[in-house]
Amino acid sequence: MIHETLRLIEGRDDVTLATYVLEDSPELLGGKKRPAVLVCPGGGYMFCSDREAEPVALRFNAMGYHAFVLRYSVLGRGKTPGFLPGATVADPETMHPAPLLDVARAMRKIADDSGAWLVDAGRIALCGFSAGAHNAAMYGAWWNSPLVRDRLGGPAVKPAAAILSYGMYDYTRFEAPTEGFAANLRKAANLALMGTTTPSEELIRTLSPCLHLTSDFPPAFLWANRGDDLVPVQQTLYLATALAEAGLPFETHVFEPGGHGLALADQSTASSRMEVLPEAARWGELAEAWLKPRFALPLEEKPAWMR
Amino acid sequence: MIHETLRLIEGRDDVTLATYVLEDSPELLGGKKRPAVLVCPGGGYMFCSDREAEPVALRFNAMGYHAFVLRYSVLGRGKTPGFLPGATVADPETMHPAPLLDVARAMRKIADDSGAWLVDAGRIALCGFSAGAHNAAMYGAWWNSPLVRDRLGGPAVKPAAAILSYGMYDYTRFEAPTEGFAANLRKAANLALMGTTTPSEELIRTLSPCLHLTSDFPPAFLWANRGDDLVPVQQTLYLATALAEAGLPFETHVFEPGGHGLALADQSTASSRMEVLPEAARWGELAEAWLKPRFALPLEEKPAWMR
Repeated sequence: MIHETLRLIEGRDDVTLATYVLEDSPELLGGKKRPAVLVCPGGGYMFCSDREAEPVALRFNAMGYHAFVLRYSVLGRGKTPGFLPGATVADPETMHPAPLLDVARAMRKIADDSGAWLVDAGRIALCGFSAGAHNAAMYGAWWNSPLVRDRLGGPAVKPAAAILSYGMYDYTRFEAPTEGFAANLRKAANLALMGTTTPSEELIRTLSPCLHLTSDFPPAFLWANRGDDLVPVQQTLYLATALAEAGLPFETHVFEPGGHGLALADQSTASSRMEVLPEAARWGELAEAWLKPRFALPLEEKPAWMR
Repeated sequence: MIHETLRLIEGRDDVTLATYVLEDSPELLGGKKRPAVLVCPGGGYMFCSDREAEPVALRFNAMGYHAFVLRYSVLGRGKTPGFLPGATVADPETMHPAPLLDVARAMRKIADDSGAWLVDAGRIALCGFSAGAHNAAMYGAWWNSPLVRDRLGGPAVKPAAAILSYGMYDYTRFEAPTEGFAANLRKAANLALMGTTTPSEELIRTLSPCLHLTSDFPPAFLWANRGDDLVPVQQTLYLATALAEAGLPFETHVFEPGGHGLALADQSTASSRMEVLPEAARWGELAEAWLKPRFALPLEEKPAWMR
């Protein structure tokens, strides 16, 4: 395995791409390229959660795919270990469109180094959680538009698929909580992503992938929990509905038990028993089965020693 | 992840331990230790198969366990990519007991560095394939005996469990093939492990873990394929029977379809479609379920932010 952490922006320690590139061997694909998955952790654009990072990459490795973890621009710049519900100051360098452009940079880097890493650059999937699912869906909606292209300074890499876990996809249909922890968290999340707690209608629309679906949007696998009290489960259904109405391919699963942020919902992403939920953990197998026909490895008819 | 390849013997490049040590995080186990699995690839004591190495380690990583790959002493010394059916010269430095002692060294190294790696040294499992399964079973049988202790120069580390795939466990009940490729391969394998094609009865007995089962032998998970034409499926049944008769814990699965050397039997360990067999691939989930109660992670009641 090639495991290293690369900076994506000169002078910025907080925007990084960690590689989980599988070893090549004459006994395996013998120099042929494999699909890859780029993992975007969540954390409300305030931090990037470790629970939705390395363990997820390893899960895709175990399926036979290269994997990468992107730590994109967030308000805490990688120096704070969690949400920042009391945040009051925005950061122009980490707010929109910075996180979206970081996805573009990561996709570009993977494609540029695909020869050395034996990545099939035509088959790079995004896998995002919560804010990372929003960011991945944003890239799906905007990768082929001036919003990304003009700032990236060149063509962006088409994502081959998107696996989206409990994200926000339509801010125009989101009723923000008005009191308590959730309200403070929402204000901070808006400050982090939008740079303001009172965003314009235009910005709200730009940040809602549901409203910008074209055939450029990748085939998508969406899932969430009915009991999510941080991002309403409707958000997943809005995107599924919009994809259906746009005639685009998708699969969706809503599990009845469980709240927000379960990651893989098994012990590999848990610190506590509250983060383990076997019912929801089935999303991993479902996503694997969904991805498999699209991401089939280039296997020979017979092993080398029989050819 | 800490991924590095360490030499286990001064001056020998061919005996190595590759680490797949999971990242710690306050969001995950926050400094608490995890169980680990030491993977021993197969290859008839002539080579160590890449198909039974990194992809298997990553599979255990995905379950939330640290993993290690041991490349132990083999006739080819890591310089030949496959079987050596025409071999005629033995190598005293790589034949028995060298491969067994390499397991002991690897277990010792993992235990010695368990503080830095956050490994629960009381819960290190062995996972071996074919010759690697034989080697792992040998360690299970002999780790607490002078054969290992006297040469290791100190106490050996007790294995917490053994996951054994399509291995040889009782040479006294093995009728070697007398002609064709299989006969040549068997001769070479005997030369590699035993240093001779005409081993003594005593050596044959020493190399048969079935004959040396005590309560030191770890709980075992054994599986094989009915259609194995290289190592007869009886070998797995002999060990299961011996464990049953000794009153020791085990689980065993024999799948009807499939031949020798399927590894994980899915695309992650395949070079060709002949190495993918969904029926047999179920052994991975079965082993995961078997291991889970023994290897439960030290999870808290609630996540840190709720405590």
